[in-house]
Amino acid sequence: MEVVLRPIGFVRHGLPDDSVKSSLEGVQGFIEVLPEYTPGLDGLEGFSHIVVIAYLHKARGRSLKVKPRGLLRLGFRLEDLPEVGVFATDSPSRPNPLALTIARLHGIEGGRLRVSGLDLYDGTPVLDIKPYTPSRRVEDLSLPLWYKRLMEEAARRDPRVREL
Amino acid sequence: MEVVLRPIGFVRHGLPDDSVKSSLEGVQGFIEVLPEYTPGLDGLEGFSHIVVIAYLHKARGRSLKVKPRGLLRLGFRLEDLPEVGVFATDSPSRPNPLALTIARLHGIEGGRLRVSGLDLYDGTPVLDIKPYTPSRRVEDLSLPLWYKRLMEEAARRDPRVREL
Repeated sequence: MEVVLRPIGFVRHGLPDDSVKSSLEGVQGFIEVLPEYTPGLDGLEGFSHIVVIAYLHKARGRSLKVKPRGLLRLGFRLEDLPEVGVFATDSPSRPNPLALTIARLHGIEGGRLRVSGLDLYDGTPVLDIKPYTPSRRVEDLSLPLWYKRLMEEAARRDPRVREL
Repeated sequence: MEVVLRPIGFVRHGLPDDSVKSSLEGVQGFIEVLPEYTPGLDGLEGFSHIVVIAYLHKARGRSLKVKPRGLLRLGFRLEDLPEVGVFATDSPSRPNPLALTIARLHGIEGGRLRVSGLDLYDGTPVLDIKPYTPSRRVEDLSLPLWYKRLMEEAARRDPRVREL
Protein backbone atom coordinates (compact mmCIF):
# COMPACT_ATOMS: atom_id res chain seq x y z
CA MET A 1 0.00 0.00 0.00
CA GLU A 2 1.30 3.43 -0.95
CA VAL A 3 0.23 6.79 0.44
CA VAL A 4 0.74 9.62 -2.03
CA LEU A 5 0.79 13.18 -0.72
CA ARG A 6 1.57 16.59 -2.17
CA PRO A 7 3.18 19.58 -0.43
CA ILE A 8 0.80 22.37 0.60
CA GLY A 9 3.73 24.75 1.01
CA PHE A 10 7.41 25.13 1.75
CA VAL A 11 9.70 26.36 4.52
CA ARG A 12 11.54 29.57 3.59
CA HIS A 13 14.25 31.22 5.67
CA GLY A 14 17.31 31.33 3.44
CA LEU A 15 19.64 30.02 6.15
CA PRO A 16 22.23 27.32 5.52
CA ASP A 17 21.37 23.83 6.78
CA ASP A 18 24.18 23.96 9.33
CA SER A 19 22.71 26.92 11.17
CA VAL A 20 19.40 25.05 11.46
CA LYS A 21 21.23 21.98 12.70
CA SER A 22 23.19 23.86 15.34
CA SER A 23 20.31 25.97 16.60
CA LEU A 24 18.94 24.99 19.97
CA GLU A 25 15.61 26.79 19.82
CA GLY A 26 15.11 26.59 16.06
CA VAL A 27 15.22 29.43 13.56
CA GLN A 28 12.85 32.17 12.43
CA GLY A 29 11.36 32.16 8.99
CA PHE A 30 8.28 31.58 6.93
CA ILE A 31 6.01 28.84 5.80
CA GLU A 32 4.82 29.74 2.34
CA VAL A 33 1.52 28.05 1.66
CA LEU A 34 0.78 27.53 -2.04
CA PRO A 35 -1.86 29.93 -3.40
CA GLU A 36 -4.43 27.19 -4.03
CA TYR A 37 -4.42 26.28 -0.33
CA THR A 38 -4.41 29.70 1.34
CA PRO A 39 -8.18 29.76 2.01
CA GLY A 40 -7.46 26.88 4.39
CA LEU A 41 -5.58 29.30 6.67
CA ASP A 42 -8.67 31.28 7.70
CA GLY A 43 -9.12 31.22 11.46
CA LEU A 44 -5.54 30.13 12.16
CA GLU A 45 -4.40 33.60 13.18
CA GLY A 46 -4.64 33.91 16.96
CA PHE A 47 -3.27 30.46 17.70
CA SER A 48 0.10 31.20 19.29
CA HIS A 49 1.52 27.89 18.06
CA ILE A 50 1.02 25.56 15.14
CA VAL A 51 1.94 21.97 14.44
CA VAL A 52 3.73 21.49 11.14
CA ILE A 53 4.03 18.09 9.50
CA ALA A 54 6.83 18.25 6.97
CA TYR A 55 8.61 15.89 4.62
CA LEU A 56 12.32 15.68 5.38
CA HIS A 57 13.43 15.73 1.77
CA LYS A 58 17.13 15.74 2.64
CA ALA A 59 17.00 12.78 5.03
CA ARG A 60 19.52 10.20 3.89
CA GLY A 61 19.09 6.58 4.77
CA ARG A 62 16.34 4.93 6.74
CA SER A 63 17.50 3.23 9.89
CA LEU A 64 15.61 1.39 12.59
CA LYS A 65 18.33 1.87 15.22
CA VAL A 66 19.77 5.34 15.63
CA LYS A 67 21.71 7.55 18.00
CA PRO A 68 19.89 10.76 18.94
CA ARG A 69 22.45 12.84 17.05
CA GLY A 70 20.56 16.07 17.71
CA LEU A 71 22.34 15.99 21.08
CA LEU A 72 25.75 16.37 19.45
CA ARG A 73 25.10 20.12 19.39
CA LEU A 74 25.17 20.04 23.19
CA GLY A 75 28.69 18.71 23.29
CA PHE A 76 27.87 15.02 23.55
CA ARG A 77 30.28 12.80 21.72
CA LEU A 78 28.80 10.20 19.40
CA GLU A 79 30.11 7.44 21.66
CA ASP A 80 28.25 8.95 24.65
CA LEU A 81 24.91 8.46 22.95
CA PRO A 82 22.89 5.27 23.29
CA GLU A 83 21.55 3.46 20.24
CA VAL A 84 17.76 3.21 20.41
CA GLY A 85 14.85 2.48 18.11
CA VAL A 86 14.12 5.24 15.61
CA PHE A 87 10.50 5.55 16.83
CA ALA A 88 11.83 6.49 20.28
CA THR A 89 13.60 9.50 18.73
CA ASP A 90 13.05 12.41 16.37
CA SER A 91 15.80 11.21 14.02
CA PRO A 92 15.14 12.11 10.38
CA SER A 93 16.44 8.69 9.28
CA ARG A 94 13.02 7.08 9.82
CA PRO A 95 11.06 4.75 7.54
CA ASN A 96 8.78 7.66 6.54
CA PRO A 97 10.89 10.81 6.93
CA LEU A 98 8.15 12.96 8.49
CA ALA A 99 8.91 15.82 10.84
CA LEU A 100 6.62 17.09 13.53
CA THR A 101 7.53 20.66 14.39
CA ILE A 102 5.79 22.88 16.90
CA ALA A 103 6.38 26.45 15.77
CA ARG A 104 5.37 29.76 17.25
CA LEU A 105 3.07 31.66 14.89
CA HIS A 106 3.80 35.39 14.80
CA GLY A 107 1.49 36.41 11.99
CA ILE A 108 -0.03 35.55 8.64
CA GLU A 109 0.14 37.73 5.54
CA GLY A 110 -1.68 36.11 2.65
CA GLY A 111 -0.16 32.66 2.35
CA ARG A 112 2.97 33.53 4.36
CA LEU A 113 3.11 32.37 7.96
CA ARG A 114 5.78 34.13 9.98
CA VAL A 115 7.06 31.58 12.49
CA SER A 116 9.90 30.81 14.87
CA GLY A 117 11.14 27.57 16.37
CA LEU A 118 11.75 25.94 13.00
CA ASP A 119 14.06 22.94 12.98
CA LEU A 120 13.47 22.49 9.26
CA TYR A 121 15.84 23.25 6.40
CA ASP A 122 15.11 25.95 3.88
CA GLY A 123 12.93 24.50 1.12
CA THR A 124 11.45 21.67 3.19
CA PRO A 125 8.05 20.61 1.79
CA VAL A 126 5.20 21.08 4.27
CA LEU A 127 2.42 18.47 4.17
CA ASP A 128 0.04 19.74 6.82
CA ILE A 129 -0.54 22.51 9.34
CA LYS A 130 -2.71 22.08 12.44
CA PRO A 131 -3.51 24.43 15.32
CA TYR A 132 -1.82 23.74 18.64
CA THR A 133 -4.86 23.31 20.86
CA PRO A 134 -4.81 22.69 24.63
CA SER A 135 -5.53 18.98 24.13
CA ARG A 136 -2.05 18.58 22.62
CA ARG A 137 -0.51 19.52 25.95
CA VAL A 138 -0.01 16.42 28.07
CA GLU A 139 0.26 17.16 31.78
CA ASP A 140 0.88 13.76 33.34
CA LEU A 141 3.92 12.86 31.30
CA SER A 142 6.47 10.21 32.17
CA LEU A 143 9.72 9.35 30.42
CA PRO A 144 12.00 6.32 30.24
CA LEU A 145 15.14 6.25 32.34
CA TRP A 146 17.54 6.36 29.37
CA TYR A 147 15.88 9.56 28.16
CA LYS A 148 15.77 11.23 31.58
CA ARG A 149 19.45 10.52 32.14
CA LEU A 150 20.42 12.02 28.78
CA MET A 151 18.36 15.14 29.44
CA GLU A 152 19.90 15.58 32.89
CA GLU A 153 23.36 15.27 31.41
CA ALA A 154 22.41 17.70 28.60
CA ALA A 155 21.14 20.25 31.13
CA ARG A 156 24.44 19.99 33.01
CA ARG A 157 26.30 20.71 29.77
CA ASP A 158 24.05 23.57 28.68
CA PRO A 159 21.76 25.26 31.18
CA ARG A 160 19.41 26.38 28.39
CA VAL A 161 18.38 22.77 27.99
CA ARG A 162 15.91 22.00 30.67
CA GLU A 163 13.68 20.24 28.23
CA LEU A 164 14.43 19.08 24.73
CA MET B 1 6.15 16.92 -6.53
CA GLU B 2 4.81 13.76 -4.94
CA VAL B 3 5.68 12.32 -1.56
CA VAL B 4 5.26 8.54 -1.42
CA LEU B 5 5.02 6.86 1.97
CA ARG B 6 4.24 3.36 3.21
CA PRO B 7 2.44 2.34 6.41
CA ILE B 8 4.65 1.11 9.22
CA GLY B 9 1.64 -0.43 10.96
CA PHE B 10 -2.09 -0.31 11.49
CA VAL B 11 -4.60 0.64 14.19
CA ARG B 12 -6.46 -2.37 15.59
CA HIS B 13 -9.35 -2.23 18.04
CA GLY B 14 -12.25 -3.93 16.30
CA LEU B 15 -14.72 -1.17 17.18
CA PRO B 16 -17.18 0.28 14.68
CA ASP B 17 -16.33 3.69 13.25
CA ASP B 18 -19.32 5.27 14.98
CA SER B 19 -18.06 4.44 18.45
CA VAL B 20 -14.74 6.08 17.62
CA LYS B 21 -16.55 9.12 16.25
CA SER B 22 -18.76 9.50 19.33
CA SER B 23 -16.02 8.93 21.90
CA LEU B 24 -14.87 12.02 23.75
CA GLU B 25 -11.58 10.68 25.12
CA GLY B 26 -10.82 8.24 22.30
CA VAL B 27 -10.83 4.46 22.45
CA GLN B 28 -8.48 1.77 23.69
CA GLY B 29 -6.74 -0.56 21.29
CA PHE B 30 -3.51 -1.46 19.62
CA ILE B 31 -1.09 -0.18 17.08
CA GLU B 32 0.33 -3.17 15.29
CA VAL B 33 3.70 -2.32 13.86
CA LEU B 34 4.72 -4.46 10.89
CA PRO B 35 7.39 -7.07 11.74
CA GLU B 36 10.07 -5.44 9.59
CA TYR B 37 9.82 -2.23 11.63
CA THR B 38 9.59 -3.57 15.19
CA PRO B 39 13.32 -3.04 15.98
CA GLY B 40 12.49 0.67 15.66
CA LEU B 41 10.40 0.43 18.85
CA ASP B 42 13.37 -0.22 21.18
CA GLY B 43 13.53 2.42 23.89
CA LEU B 44 9.94 3.58 23.38
CA GLU B 45 8.63 1.73 26.44
CA GLY B 46 8.59 4.11 29.39
CA PHE B 47 7.28 7.09 27.46
CA SER B 48 3.78 7.56 28.87
CA HIS B 49 2.55 9.07 25.61
CA ILE B 50 3.33 8.78 21.93
CA VAL B 51 2.55 10.87 18.91
CA VAL B 52 1.01 8.90 16.06
CA ILE B 53 0.92 10.23 12.51
CA ALA B 54 -1.70 8.29 10.58
CA TYR B 55 -3.23 8.34 7.13
CA LEU B 56 -6.99 8.92 7.29
CA HIS B 57 -7.83 6.36 4.62
CA LYS B 58 -11.59 6.85 5.00
CA ALA B 59 -11.54 10.66 4.71
CA ARG B 60 -13.91 11.68 1.95
CA GLY B 61 -13.43 14.92 0.14
CA ARG B 62 -10.78 17.54 0.61
CA SER B 63 -12.11 20.92 1.62
CA LEU B 64 -10.37 24.17 2.44
CA LYS B 65 -13.28 25.53 4.48
CA VAL B 66 -14.86 23.24 7.05
CA LYS B 67 -17.02 23.23 10.15
CA PRO B 68 -15.36 21.59 13.17
CA ARG B 69 -17.85 18.71 13.04
CA GLY B 70 -16.13 16.87 15.87
CA LEU B 71 -18.11 19.20 18.13
CA LEU B 72 -21.41 17.70 16.96
CA ARG B 73 -20.86 14.95 19.54
CA LEU B 74 -21.19 17.61 22.24
CA GLY B 75 -24.68 18.55 21.15
CA PHE B 76 -23.77 21.43 18.85
CA ARG B 77 -25.97 21.73 15.82
CA LEU B 78 -24.25 22.07 12.47
CA GLU B 79 -25.67 25.59 12.10
CA ASP B 80 -24.07 26.60 15.43
CA LEU B 81 -20.59 25.88 14.12
CA PRO B 82 -18.50 28.48 12.32
CA GLU B 83 -16.89 27.75 8.99
CA VAL B 84 -13.12 28.14 9.18
CA GLY B 85 -10.03 27.17 7.23
CA VAL B 86 -9.21 23.47 7.38
CA PHE B 87 -5.70 24.18 8.72
CA ALA B 88 -7.28 25.84 11.77
CA THR B 89 -9.04 22.54 12.60
CA ASP B 90 -8.40 18.82 12.92
CA SER B 91 -10.95 18.01 10.20
CA PRO B 92 -10.05 14.87 8.25
CA SER B 93 -11.16 16.55 5.00
CA ARG B 94 -7.76 18.18 4.53
CA PRO B 95 -5.57 18.37 1.43
CA ASN B 96 -3.30 15.65 2.86
CA PRO B 97 -5.52 13.55 5.16
CA LEU B 98 -2.97 13.15 7.95
CA ALA B 99 -3.97 12.65 11.58
CA LEU B 100 -1.91 13.67 14.56
CA THR B 101 -2.99 11.62 17.56
CA ILE B 102 -1.49 11.79 21.03
CA ALA B 103 -2.10 8.41 22.61
CA ARG B 104 -1.29 7.04 26.03
CA LEU B 105 1.12 4.12 25.79
CA HIS B 106 0.30 1.32 28.25
CA GLY B 107 2.75 -1.28 27.07
CA ILE B 108 4.54 -2.92 24.17
CA GLU B 109 4.54 -6.64 23.41
CA GLY B 110 6.61 -7.41 20.33
CA GLY B 111 5.20 -5.16 17.65
CA ARG B 112 1.91 -4.49 19.46
CA LEU B 113 1.55 -1.17 21.27
CA ARG B 114 -1.31 -1.14 23.75
CA VAL B 115 -2.69 2.40 23.74
CA SER B 116 -5.66 4.52 24.71
CA GLY B 117 -6.92 7.86 23.51
CA LEU B 118 -7.23 6.72 19.89
CA ASP B 119 -9.46 8.81 17.65
CA LEU B 120 -8.59 6.60 14.68
CA TYR B 121 -10.76 4.01 12.97
CA ASP B 122 -9.93 0.32 13.06
CA GLY B 123 -7.53 -0.44 10.22
CA THR B 124 -6.11 3.08 9.89
CA PRO B 125 -2.61 2.98 8.38
CA VAL B 126 0.05 4.43 10.69
CA LEU B 127 2.89 6.34 9.03
CA ASP B 128 5.04 7.30 11.99
CA ILE B 129 5.38 7.05 15.75
CA LYS B 130 7.33 9.54 17.86
CA PRO B 131 7.86 9.85 21.61
CA TYR B 132 5.94 12.58 23.41
CA THR B 133 8.83 14.50 24.93
CA PRO B 134 8.55 17.55 27.24
CA SER B 135 9.39 19.90 24.36
CA ARG B 136 6.05 19.06 22.76
CA ARG B 137 4.25 20.62 25.71
CA VAL B 138 3.67 24.32 25.07
CA GLU B 139 3.11 26.31 28.23
CA ASP B 140 2.47 29.85 27.00
CA LEU B 141 -0.37 29.01 24.67
CA SER B 142 -2.90 31.46 23.30
CA LEU B 143 -5.98 30.78 21.21
CA PRO B 144 -8.16 32.81 18.84
CA LEU B 145 -11.44 34.23 20.09
CA TRP B 146 -13.63 32.01 17.86
CA TYR B 147 -11.98 28.92 19.28
CA LYS B 148 -12.16 30.05 22.91
CA ARG B 149 -15.87 30.85 22.57
CA LEU B 150 -16.62 27.43 21.10
CA MET B 151 -14.71 25.65 23.86
CA GLU B 152 -16.49 27.68 26.55
CA GLU B 153 -19.84 26.78 25.02
CA ALA B 154 -18.76 23.11 24.74
CA ALA B 155 -17.75 23.04 28.41
CA ARG B 156 -21.18 24.42 29.35
CA ARG B 157 -22.83 21.61 27.38
CA ASP B 158 -20.60 18.84 28.70
CA PRO B 159 -18.54 19.41 31.85
CA ARG B 160 -16.02 16.74 30.75
CA VAL B 161 -14.85 19.16 28.08
CA ARG B 162 -12.56 21.64 29.69
CA GLU B 163 -10.12 21.30 26.89
CA LEU B 164 -10.55 19.70 23.49
